[in-house]
Amino acid sequence: MRSAMGRSTATTITVQGLDLCDDVLGTLNLGDFAFLEITGKRPDAHQSVVFNAMLATLVEHGMTPMVMAARLTYLGAPESLQAAVAAGLCGIGSTFAGTAEGAAKLLQAAYGTAGDATHVLAARIVAEHRAARRPIPGLGHNLHKPVDPRTTRLFELAGEHGLHGRYVALMNAISVEAERAANKPGQLPVNATGALGALCCELAIPWQLCRGLAVIGRSVGIVGHLAEELRNPIARTLWERTEAETSGVDEAPGGDQP
Amino acid sequence: MRSAMGRSTATTITVQGLDLCDDVLGTLNLGDFAFLEITGKRPDAHQSVVFNAMLATLVEHGMTPMVMAARLTYLGAPESLQAAVAAGLCGIGSTFAGTAEGAAKLLQAAYGTAGDATHVLAARIVAEHRAARRPIPGLGHNLHKPVDPRTTRLFELAGEHGLHGRYVALMNAISVEAERAANKPGQLPVNATGALGALCCELAIPWQLCRGLAVIGRSVGIVGHLAEELRNPIARTLWERTEAETSGVDEAPGGDQP
Amino acid sequence: MRSAMGRSTATTITVQGLDLCDDVLGTLNLGDFAFLEITGKRPDAHQSVVFNAMLATLVEHGMTPMVMAARLTYLGAPESLQAAVAAGLCGIGSTFAGTAEGAAKLLQAAYGTAGDATHVLAARIVAEHRAARRPIPGLGHNLHKPVDPRTTRLFELAGEHGLHGRYVALMNAISVEAERAANKPGQLPVNATGALGALCCELAIPWQLCRGLAVIGRSVGIVGHLAEELRNPIARTLWERTEAETSGVDEAPGGDQP
Amino acid sequence: MRSAMGRSTATTITVQGLDLCDDVLGTLNLGDFAFLEITGKRPDAHQSVVFNAMLATLVEHGMTPMVMAARLTYLGAPESLQAAVAAGLCGIGSTFAGTAEGAAKLLQAAYGTAGDATHVLAARIVAEHRAARRPIPGLGHNLHKPVDPRTTRLFELAGEHGLHGRYVALMNAISVEAERAANKPGQLPVNATGALGALCCELAIPWQLCRGLAVIGRSVGIVGHLAEELRNPIARTLWERTEAETSGVDEAPGGDQP
Repeated sequence: MRSAMGRSTATTITVQGLDLCDDVLGTLNLGDFAFLEITGKRPDAHQSVVFNAMLATLVEHGMTPMVMAARLTYLGAPESLQAAVAAGLCGIGSTFAGTAEGAAKLLQAAYGTAGDATHVLAARIVAEHRAARRPIPGLGHNLHKPVDPRTTRLFELAGEHGLHGRYVALMNAISVEAERAANKPGQLPVNATGALGALCCELAIPWQLCRGLAVIGRSVGIVGHLAEELRNPIARTLWERTEAETSGVDEAPGGDQP
Repeated sequence: MRSAMGRSTATTITVQGLDLCDDVLGTLNLGDFAFLEITGKRPDAHQSVVFNAMLATLVEHGMTPMVMAARLTYLGAPESLQAAVAAGLCGIGSTFAGTAEGAAKLLQAAYGTAGDATHVLAARIVAEHRAARRPIPGLGHNLHKPVDPRTTRLFELAGEHGLHGRYVALMNAISVEAERAANKPGQLPVNATGALGALCCELAIPWQLCRGLAVIGRSVGIVGHLAEELRNPIARTLWERTEAETSGVDEAPGGDQP
Repeated sequence: MRSAMGRSTATTITVQGLDLCDDVLGTLNLGDFAFLEITGKRPDAHQSVVFNAMLATLVEHGMTPMVMAARLTYLGAPESLQAAVAAGLCGIGSTFAGTAEGAAKLLQAAYGTAGDATHVLAARIVAEHRAARRPIPGLGHNLHKPVDPRTTRLFELAGEHGLHGRYVALMNAISVEAERAANKPGQLPVNATGALGALCCELAIPWQLCRGLAVIGRSVGIVGHLAEELRNPIARTLWERTEAETSGVDEAPGGDQP
Repeated sequence: MRSAMGRSTATTITVQGLDLCDDVLGTLNLGDFAFLEITGKRPDAHQSVVFNAMLATLVEHGMTPMVMAARLTYLGAPESLQAAVAAGLCGIGSTFAGTAEGAAKLLQAAYGTAGDATHVLAARIVAEHRAARRPIPGLGHNLHKPVDPRTTRLFELAGEHGLHGRYVALMNAISVEAERAANKPGQLPVNATGALGALCCELAIPWQLCRGLAVIGRSVGIVGHLAEELRNPIARTLWERTEAETSGVDEAPGGDQP
């Protein structure tokens, strides 16, 4: 059993082969360090901008179920902030935030097996999903249409920094073909998770780790919500109202100790 | 490193020195097995009744913050029911459900260090807490007063089964003395966590493990709430309403993908 | 939003329509209460024996990855025992302990759609899985063969208590047919998760909740391991050795504060 | 109930009053965004460098108990990477990584109540802790002495960026006084958590949120370890060896399904 992640002596701390104090602190920002941890390589200046933007896309989505769960957990165990964040992260999954990996897996498999042109691959992928009546991961959004503004911005940054490659092209081509085949113009844009999946591919991050980016981003966002909960608490009100309503009483029973 | 918890061969499974198939399945109920796991001993018939009642006290408390957190987590990751339960359990802490250990610690320390009579110990404990302006763990309830009906029943069962010993007596004496000293008759009954703490002492369970009983009981209760969520979901409504209200819009924005 | 799980007044606590103090404490054991929580019904005497045995099967499996994770978490945060159990539960999944739901889903779907005889259903299920090169959930075990002794005992109890019905019959028939079709006599017995899946069907528990039984059972087992960790700790040794070995030093660096 | 964290329309996403696409993506790095989430303010260029360095200090500490727990959890549930990270985070606590809050609380309380000079405050704090036989949070390290190189670097960066204020001065003064009073020269340096606590104070971050920085940093580090686990797995070996040794057999029993 071996690990190359990090080690320490009395005077030095080494992470991924770099000296923490000399090479990381004051030099790498948190997103850069995440890139180093995940890929084993320091990002160059272009990768740094795009990867930080990818993570930033995942941080804050307002009052989601997972931040509600974290705030309710913090109400019960304020001495264990880490457990409240852990509770919130447990809500990442098939419904929310876990979908970038589907797009990345699709794109990595497409180029892994075939030498065909992008439009041929896109047509085949759309046809296969339509035949199986499966939704294509990374397309469509209930609110953001005909375009998801995050995708526009992320792909713009990718273009400026030399990361607008074949995976981004394929993801875009799949969206165009899916809208054409379903005759739904403007209804199946590449959404933020589709953009993130494509950019993970451009950065050579395996699809299995896409969800890790969501975990990192949401950890930041959940801590942010707990900071707001500390200043402006809502969890107790949320609980008391819900308890009263679900038990069918007109007013809360005064907050029985749960 | 050694462990005596369990091991297997091709034809046998041994747990705590018992044969799982011959000695446990069909013989020990789940509470009995929990007693065996925690203490290393099979409960006798009396311990079985009381210990199962103790765990049952901890199962269901209605729509608590921790079951709300579990339901919201299940909404996001229905494929990971275990993570929804884990999220709920993370809300056990200083506010809710984690308080039996305080009572048990107090009682175990009292008899650990002194040979004094029960009423002398009770008077000293109450005086010390009053001087330090610290609440006495295990006393008082916002709803259940002048008595907590769970305490009445648990101590009744303990009496019937020979487990109404010196720790129960001391817990009761502390309540009487605390009400007298504070001149608050009927306001500081032994609550359910105080009863559970005292009974853990009677069963020789270390105070550090009292919280484990809450964890076991709440695991059962949280799974129960997820079963109801499957039949009669409330998490999506709870989320959509909360998102709309906290963002100050009159109606929900249609459920942006979080 | 409504819930029927439980509510309280000053003098009563009602759970699932029963009075906690009068009808549950001293009457229902913990497994019975779990049945009530999950199904909304009190178990009869037969269901009680079988359901408690099912849960007991899931409690203790020796030094598994999930109890190791719980012990290591407890080392870092001994004040948050609930978080250590939560960490352990997060390891239930596709590799371990999450597989009973696959068997139950298969069995519930089989009888949900067809009026065919058991042996016809078994032949079709085996043929479909072989054609798709997918393993059949609930069959085979690396250690327990040609029979899993837990299955033998669980099905024996089911027979004694009138719960050896068509789902148990179908699970057994699938095992026989799978061994025949693969020409692997004694290699594909119904394992414990297959038995649990079949018995969940006999008790009308939806397949989505099978994993909940594992969660309940493992919660008990993890608390048991933390009790042993308190008496006989291994986590620190496990950590120091692993740190030393993975960092390639001959001896531990003295335990750098992580 | 109100929240100002974020909201969305069809064409815009607003976070903390900034437009995500125009003001955040490509502009703020992940550490900057974390600062915005926690404090509600964009960091200036100086705060950005120091805050990113603070978070980076918390990312990677080699093969800690919490990354071991995360790797073992990932072995059981590879489809739920988020749960493996959650399990790892649950191990933040009183033993590891949760200690910066103690230093920050001490420092915030010192300046909150008194107008005394730094050396007077330091002497009083050291005397009080010595009288109560309590260790002073943020001092000492088993490996890094007579100085913790991370502290040296963090305080150097703070000096370069105008954040070496009275809290840093007090933390240093406490270390000097503690070594003098205990007659332990070089044994009680300000460790990394002491440095982080002091810098949180300089940035006006409440002590209750210091642990949030550890959570963010460790989330990045745990995802990094899971990336290595994917390339170079150790969890199965770790489990099989530990199971064999703790059950007292000479070789692993072949990996019973847990």
